[in-house]
Amino acid sequence: MTLSKIAKLIKDGQPEQQVEVAGWVRTKRESKQAFAFLELNDGSSMTGLQVIVDDSVPGFAESIKAITTGASVRVSGILKESPGKGQSIELHAAELTVLGTADAQTYPLQKKRHSFEFLREIAHLRPRTNTFGAIARVRNALCAAIHNFFQSRGFLYIHTPVITTSDCEGAGTMFQVTTLDLAKLAQVKTEIDYGQDFFGKQASLTVSGQLEAETFASSVGDCYTFGPTFRAENSNTTRHLAEFWMVEPEMPFYELNDNMDLAESFIRTILADVLAACPEDMEFFNLRIEKTILETLRNIIDNDFIRLPYTEAVEILLASGQEFEYPVSWGIDLQSEHERFLTEQHFKQPVILYDYPRSIKPFYMRCNEDGKTVRAMDVLVPRVGEIIGGSQREERLDVLTDRMAECGLEPEDYWWYLDLRRYGSVPHSGFGLGLERTLLLLTGMANIRDVIPFPRTPKNAEF
Amino acid sequence: MTLSKIAKLIKDGQPEQQVEVAGWVRTKRESKQAFAFLELNDGSSMTGLQVIVDDSVPGFAESIKAITTGASVRVSGILKESPGKGQSIELHAAELTVLGTADAQTYPLQKKRHSFEFLREIAHLRPRTNTFGAIARVRNALCAAIHNFFQSRGFLYIHTPVITTSDCEGAGTMFQVTTLDLAKLAQVKTEIDYGQDFFGKQASLTVSGQLEAETFASSVGDCYTFGPTFRAENSNTTRHLAEFWMVEPEMPFYELNDNMDLAESFIRTILADVLAACPEDMEFFNLRIEKTILETLRNIIDNDFIRLPYTEAVEILLASGQEFEYPVSWGIDLQSEHERFLTEQHFKQPVILYDYPRSIKPFYMRCNEDGKTVRAMDVLVPRVGEIIGGSQREERLDVLTDRMAECGLEPEDYWWYLDLRRYGSVPHSGFGLGLERTLLLLTGMANIRDVIPFPRTPKNAEF
Repeated sequence: MTLSKIAKLIKDGQPEQQVEVAGWVRTKRESKQAFAFLELNDGSSMTGLQVIVDDSVPGFAESIKAITTGASVRVSGILKESPGKGQSIELHAAELTVLGTADAQTYPLQKKRHSFEFLREIAHLRPRTNTFGAIARVRNALCAAIHNFFQSRGFLYIHTPVITTSDCEGAGTMFQVTTLDLAKLAQVKTEIDYGQDFFGKQASLTVSGQLEAETFASSVGDCYTFGPTFRAENSNTTRHLAEFWMVEPEMPFYELNDNMDLAESFIRTILADVLAACPEDMEFFNLRIEKTILETLRNIIDNDFIRLPYTEAVEILLASGQEFEYPVSWGIDLQSEHERFLTEQHFKQPVILYDYPRSIKPFYMRCNEDGKTVRAMDVLVPRVGEIIGGSQREERLDVLTDRMAECGLEPEDYWWYLDLRRYGSVPHSGFGLGLERTLLLLTGMANIRDVIPFPRTPKNAEF
Repeated sequence: MTLSKIAKLIKDGQPEQQVEVAGWVRTKRESKQAFAFLELNDGSSMTGLQVIVDDSVPGFAESIKAITTGASVRVSGILKESPGKGQSIELHAAELTVLGTADAQTYPLQKKRHSFEFLREIAHLRPRTNTFGAIARVRNALCAAIHNFFQSRGFLYIHTPVITTSDCEGAGTMFQVTTLDLAKLAQVKTEIDYGQDFFGKQASLTVSGQLEAETFASSVGDCYTFGPTFRAENSNTTRHLAEFWMVEPEMPFYELNDNMDLAESFIRTILADVLAACPEDMEFFNLRIEKTILETLRNIIDNDFIRLPYTEAVEILLASGQEFEYPVSWGIDLQSEHERFLTEQHFKQPVILYDYPRSIKPFYMRCNEDGKTVRAMDVLVPRVGEIIGGSQREERLDVLTDRMAECGLEPEDYWWYLDLRRYGSVPHSGFGLGLERTLLLLTGMANIRDVIPFPRTPKNAEF
């Protein structure tokens, strides 16, 4: 393997090198004189390499005839300074091999613009476009930034199970996992015997790794999960996926304020890292997808987040004079329109709301002394709304078991979770960041189906 | 948060600092004089911090009485040079708070040694032991090394879907994912209507992200997946899990030799990185778990791997004079005993076997000209056997469709995979590394259930 990556050749900009590259042809321009220009892309950057092929190249005529948009080629030659604008170097081919053709009659990605809806139907080909190539690179840079943030702070990356017999949120919107023969089950009238199922009981796909992560926070210290999570909600919106990736740090000895400090530092650091890692792709999103993206991100990175109790947020919303679709009153779960009013119109920057009503939050959040609220926190950002949800966890065994009863949960089902409060219990906190929501914020893309390689939504698990 | 991590305090070894630490008490020794020694562990390292508490500490008597093995405390004081052996510094407490007690009558982790079988039943507490704390740190270091390896080479991390309607291996050992009401389904004799299921058709948990990864290798270039994969095999062995993590790089323009080069470099780099990152934990495994671990790892890191066609491996096995449980002949899938003979007795180092019989390998591997073998490669290591399986992929549309027919697969089910061969097809290769198998190699642990936080195996999805 002596192939050079195009991103590096363009960045280095060193002419008079002998190089070999390979990739996919985006455009071909033929001249009446015996030469042709190819724009070659290998995915390492948005900008392709201009390749000049003339009839000194063996097999010139046949090769150029075979090459259409989407064809794959391998080219060796000499880099030269480019006289054209828009690129500093170009490749003068000495040898060219056509690896694979792409029939112009049937290849779906022709030069014209395609709608995102259409591209979703060919999700296996869409990373070959500028937009989806850029999304792939930004998604990678974001994941790298997430790992770097935690690794540099001594957090341990842990893998919590995808298949589970617990239900973290007590929500019941879970996919069932089974090896029972459903066709057979449907044929005879019978009772289900989960003893015959693979795990010997009913099992589901996890909605959160938090409960399991707490066992590691209570032993090896600061840790984080980063993996796929699942919701079987029949939500056909631009913000919901049945399968999505979530990052969930969990920290012993952190109280709510420490948790907010970490969440704020986390968001600002990973956004700044992506801007630094992918300048070309981020310029593209700002130019082509959403003109306010870079300004919004700079604003988030450069300013402290507002921190505000839920109760005060409700007062602001009530006093705003705004007409909301969902009326505001203390005790409601805030809707996207409320969150966006706070971040986009009232404060014009990210807001961390905390101390939410206990009636709308899960059992594991620490109860406040007021008897009405829990130490929850949601981080809201402009345009996207909630990007992080978290809390200080209830570490007091008696309060926790009371709360479980209040939420209709059976303590026996959570014996191991309660053990963490029985043996060496410590104050601790954590939060969850949705990876795809963060990508919406970063790229300005409007539909969450477009920031994950192969989206899973109701009635759709293609590819 | 002004807590110091114990690993850092011990590493820095700077006495006469005022510090605050928090963690779990491993042992307590009381003196007749009014003081006590606590060994405090916060999970940041195997070695704990010795804490000396005397009756100048407010609430001394009550605190010491409340503290037993497993209790959580927060301590501030001054670091001093330690006169005792085995540690360079110790903490002289000025203040101590007992955060949580651990009833010595019921707390399962007492000072004595516990069997790994017993600890599996309390998987929520086992990271508090030396062995499982070390495994958590080594697992984290291994994951970090994997990401670093690929990121530093410009590979993009991509997320392939967990829920899928394709079956990569054509193996059929998959978990089904559903939101159908099974109890209801069992009550009436009926036909299943998957149109009513969440995804509108039958869906499963992925056995590999390879096919989807190939779409990214054919667009954005070198990439890798790293995520959970699933096998619904009823294998109750020490080497199988129903849910495990796999790393799958996929590279355009790589032929089989390039693939072997990358796999070899990958294994050697990640093993060396873990040795460098976790010296204390690795010493522990060498001392307590398996006395040949460090020697084996050094041997793997320092020597080139043997590369050998499958056919020659069979000849060596046939000529060995060994009695194998499974007799050897050309065409068989090699068993663990054969792999171990090659790596442990014959070559005494890792071996990459390649060019396997096509009849025992999946449809997507590139066919050799001999009509009998495919460009598969397996990397075998001492003690563990196969740690990597990979191949050059079949990039020729006609050969691939013929192979699919030979394997009884319907081309229409793979229309998008075949599109990659229709449009700009390129030679490409990839492989898969099992994370837990690699951890067996690294730690010397004998049972794969002990190197993943919460193992999923037949009849077991606890926690």
